[in-house]
Amino acid sequence: MKILILGGDGYLGWPQALHFSTQGHDVFIVDSLMRRDFDAQNNFDSLIPLQPLEQRVGAWKEKTGRKINFAIGDTRDYPLLSKVMWDFQPEAIVHFAEQRTAPYSMIDREHAVFTMDNNVIGTLNVLYAIKDSCPESHLVKLGTMGEYGTPNIDIEEGFIEVTHKGRKDRLPYPKAPSSFYHLSKVHDSHNIMFACKVWGLRATDLNQGVVYGIETRQTSMDPRLATRFDYDQIYGTVLNRFCAEAVIGYPLTVYGRGGQTRGYINIQDTMSCVDLAVTHPAPCGEYRVFNQFTETFSVGQLALIAKACGEKLGLNVRIEHLDNPRVESEGHYYRAANTSLLKLGLQPHLLEDTVLVSIMKKAMEFSGRIDKNLLAPSVNWRRTKNSLSA
Amino acid sequence: MKILILGGDGYLGWPQALHFSTQGHDVFIVDSLMRRDFDAQNNFDSLIPLQPLEQRVGAWKEKTGRKINFAIGDTRDYPLLSKVMWDFQPEAIVHFAEQRTAPYSMIDREHAVFTMDNNVIGTLNVLYAIKDSCPESHLVKLGTMGEYGTPNIDIEEGFIEVTHKGRKDRLPYPKAPSSFYHLSKVHDSHNIMFACKVWGLRATDLNQGVVYGIETRQTSMDPRLATRFDYDQIYGTVLNRFCAEAVIGYPLTVYGRGGQTRGYINIQDTMSCVDLAVTHPAPCGEYRVFNQFTETFSVGQLALIAKACGEKLGLNVRIEHLDNPRVESEGHYYRAANTSLLKLGLQPHLLEDTVLVSIMKKAMEFSGRIDKNLLAPSVNWRRTKNSLSA
Repeated sequence: MKILILGGDGYLGWPQALHFSTQGHDVFIVDSLMRRDFDAQNNFDSLIPLQPLEQRVGAWKEKTGRKINFAIGDTRDYPLLSKVMWDFQPEAIVHFAEQRTAPYSMIDREHAVFTMDNNVIGTLNVLYAIKDSCPESHLVKLGTMGEYGTPNIDIEEGFIEVTHKGRKDRLPYPKAPSSFYHLSKVHDSHNIMFACKVWGLRATDLNQGVVYGIETRQTSMDPRLATRFDYDQIYGTVLNRFCAEAVIGYPLTVYGRGGQTRGYINIQDTMSCVDLAVTHPAPCGEYRVFNQFTETFSVGQLALIAKACGEKLGLNVRIEHLDNPRVESEGHYYRAANTSLLKLGLQPHLLEDTVLVSIMKKAMEFSGRIDKNLLAPSVNWRRTKNSLSA
Repeated sequence: MKILILGGDGYLGWPQALHFSTQGHDVFIVDSLMRRDFDAQNNFDSLIPLQPLEQRVGAWKEKTGRKINFAIGDTRDYPLLSKVMWDFQPEAIVHFAEQRTAPYSMIDREHAVFTMDNNVIGTLNVLYAIKDSCPESHLVKLGTMGEYGTPNIDIEEGFIEVTHKGRKDRLPYPKAPSSFYHLSKVHDSHNIMFACKVWGLRATDLNQGVVYGIETRQTSMDPRLATRFDYDQIYGTVLNRFCAEAVIGYPLTVYGRGGQTRGYINIQDTMSCVDLAVTHPAPCGEYRVFNQFTETFSVGQLALIAKACGEKLGLNVRIEHLDNPRVESEGHYYRAANTSLLKLGLQPHLLEDTVLVSIMKKAMEFSGRIDKNLLAPSVNWRRTKNSLSA
């Protein structure tokens, strides 16, 4: 298959590109490099050193003989996006090309506006480009479990059967997200659903849980193929951040009481889920939603698990409860459906000590690169700042 | 009270400004004049001639002795918006400053992007400006009944009590809008709800039905105070358009079967509803939704009513069913709650022949200004064009 990966230089996009290339698919990457630009401008960096995209792709060719083509460009640049789609004629488009963190979107007005602009208008451009250039192409879009918030009823996969005053309908699941980032994904979902309805496009919205892990079968083949290891307060997802904190003797930073429960997924399962969505496309005109996570944990549970793992490695691990910088419930009901991907054949890699130990060992290897100043949360949901450093 | 009216030069914003000024409130208008710019660029025009904003405000001063201040500016211009709010310190902000039509948003990609950018990012700026300049100010935001779509269950006011698998929660009402314009309002609603939650802002979202009528007590005091009469396929709401069609012997343009049922409201009731929302503010931290319409009709019913009225005036009125340019159900269940504003004291002006007759008489007065080319729908939901004239 011809597969276009938008955001194919990122934490998940890059290993996903390698995954599909390994399967023999023809992979084309578009990436704006905005994630790398953020690092350069703010003195952030991946814990594992990253090669530039050109070198990554070159190393992949060298190791496997497989070629991945790419273009540097932004989804907000419609002429570029449209030309790539027209020329490449992808059968599937995997869309990772979004500003992807809640804290980033809550830094200040400018970052909130950037998030809305990049994500919502970027995705609108993707929809128009598909419609105009390759209308039968299947859009596989990364959404987030955070779109649902934490309702007091079971979370279903995108839609819910509602009985109300004696009548019934199957309606979009009500959304109550808790950052401008999560909101932008809710907006995307509504826009994509509409495009499928009026233009007959087909799309799968993958509402992904929090991803952990830093290696896939492909990225571990060569250090030049490594993907990002973000441990900082803006981009670092909680479990990866805990691992980095543990190895340098920094307390595991739990926000508030730690009763916040979410869905989690191993990076290797992300690869498989996207693969399953791509190889089992939605029919034309259908917008479908899969919840993409394998287990649920509270932040407090994860801290205890990480602490135990760290101690096995001889580390002295403390847990510290910080004032919660976010506005969220710290103890709530949480039960979410995730059967669609399992039915398609997903075989989950559950969270085991070996996974955490391997992340921690990698963090140890590069512990000299950890900047402690990037660990504590500086972005406060209630009080936005004028700049990141203020 | 000090009331800021964003979009105060528009169809509803202008009469709303006069309404509040009459009540003795201190009114300040901000408007980008984008609606007038559209007319100038596309050879559209209000059927009733409009004075420039400066002349309108001057005429109001001359007739009543009351002063309305204004600034020309865009909600996307944050420094301007923020300065106005900081200097004026409004107690209420009535937000009409959005691209307000479905067909406009469906013209092509550029118009869809403009709608998202102007509405979603403009409103995000409004929220930030309130938070930073006047956090206790009450935002009264014009939404639309079209946010709900046409579900097979009763539409409630913004939220719905859902019982699911033995558990209960009150959740945002699921949204299924049917144009990029309506989608932008759904996005606004989610963003505003979030801002109330995290920043303690207070807001009333007025999900308005289709407005008809062209005169209020204030606009009829002097021809220079008139508001817009849009009869065209882009901006003309259905009943106003039918009246213009009837007087020039053009068939009433019903899209499809005409079973599309919606909520409707007289422009005079819009004035009262916004007044009720402003004078009964939401408490800090609350996001509330009022459905702002007084009656429901199908398009087919409205065509018959307009035909009967026209015939009373001696007009020969035909009804023509066109292929529906929109993607919408042409026969469906529709029952929506609208009790909140009635409870606050709204006394509806229902649709009576006298209202339609007065609109038609106004259309007759200016019938020489009707451009027939602007009546037939050229924007097709399934097929976007490259430009408005293509």
